[in-house]
Amino acid sequence: MATREDVGALTPFCASYTQAIEIIGRRWTGAIVRSMLAGTGRFSEILAAVPGLSDRLLSERLKELELEGIVERTVVPSTPVRIEYSLTEKGKGLAAVVHAVADWAEAWTPVEPPVS
Amino acid sequence: MATREDVGALTPFCASYTQAIEIIGRRWTGAIVRSMLAGTGRFSEILAAVPGLSDRLLSERLKELELEGIVERTVVPSTPVRIEYSLTEKGKGLAAVVHAVADWAEAWTPVEPPVS
Repeated sequence: MATREDVGALTPFCASYTQAIEIIGRRWTGAIVRSMLAGTGRFSEILAAVPGLSDRLLSERLKELELEGIVERTVVPSTPVRIEYSLTEKGKGLAAVVHAVADWAEAWTPVEPPVS
Repeated sequence: MATREDVGALTPFCASYTQAIEIIGRRWTGAIVRSMLAGTGRFSEILAAVPGLSDRLLSERLKELELEGIVERTVVPSTPVRIEYSLTEKGKGLAAVVHAVADWAEAWTPVEPPVS
């Protein structure tokens, strides 16, 4: 019991934390956001950067991320028009999360067998 | 194109990164791991620390996390026996991820409307 006494302190922003981690952890979203940290890209470039991701799912995820205010879609008035996707400031704020996950994955996934 | 030149560098550990972020982002898992950072706990204590989580889902998630080597289940030979759950070293390594997500959620979720 005593070891868990600070759990109460977590409660106030539990909902936003849970929501945030589940947005980022949604299938493919973590990979899409990570690839977009490299800069603005077109649909086809993001698709190429995430092995295994389908057109349909990328399109769905980009729409979700736009609604979350994480991704911004820009129509560049060239001929033909070009659609570009980039991270908003809120989206760029995920860099720390992406790096923390990548560090953890690197440290634990490739070399360690499951701890029994 | 030039802005995306470092995407290639991400590819080598893309699979483990994607796997890692999706484990942590699975529904309730982020909240469970976060509550366990506070220390060893019994099933009922973890349940109480994560509002809205059901018995069945906590049980399922703890099993998954054990298989991933993130959580360790210990049977304490008291009378009656006591089952305790704690994070392994691999699980404790998620602290940086939890904190990065919590910081991002705190910075962006409560005050900012979606960026249009």
